[in-house]
Amino acid sequence: MSEIAITPAPPYYAVIFTSHRTKDDNGYSEMAGKMNDLAAKQPGFLGVESARESVGITVSYWSDLESIKLWKTNIEHILAQQKGKDIWYSEYKTRISKVEIDYQFIKNA
Amino acid sequence: MSEIAITPAPPYYAVIFTSHRTKDDNGYSEMAGKMNDLAAKQPGFLGVESARESVGITVSYWSDLESIKLWKTNIEHILAQQKGKDIWYSEYKTRISKVEIDYQFIKNA
Repeated sequence: MSEIAITPAPPYYAVIFTSHRTKDDNGYSEMAGKMNDLAAKQPGFLGVESARESVGITVSYWSDLESIKLWKTNIEHILAQQKGKDIWYSEYKTRISKVEIDYQFIKNA
Repeated sequence: MSEIAITPAPPYYAVIFTSHRTKDDNGYSEMAGKMNDLAAKQPGFLGVESARESVGITVSYWSDLESIKLWKTNIEHILAQQKGKDIWYSEYKTRISKVEIDYQFIKNA
């Protein structure tokens, strides 16, 4: 279950991954869980938020570009990315962005 | 229905808005639709993506920081933001980020 990520003061990085899934699960949920667990162990990982309706949006937060690059080239992640293209996604877009400003609201906090 | 936004080559800006809703609709859906329509008419607006499960994630894309600031201070939007704090959201976080790199995958394209 995804929550609002607790991130440090900016600057830090956000990877915005927006996708359309293909129809059947075909092992997707299991792999998504695995990759979330594995990402959380990577150096520079700060948190992740995720939701899916007609599109899926997953935003992962990272301390720096080098950490994002290392995660992108992690061998288990590469295999998952390939299965993503072969089986799970009909379309996706990845955007790597630098968070410059953030602010939050918590009711009655 | 949200789709993957078609955005120009970077750099451009992404506003990542992650939220927890309160329980009842109380006019939320109608206002969300209105605000989406109004945002789309603002100068510098590039597109929006949205999904909600346990958290809601809305990412809007903008050409520059000045356009984001103008939208934030639009009078109708300010009234909606106030109702958001009063009624619709128990918690939210807004992150303003500069998209530096993007890439996409379209199956059999």
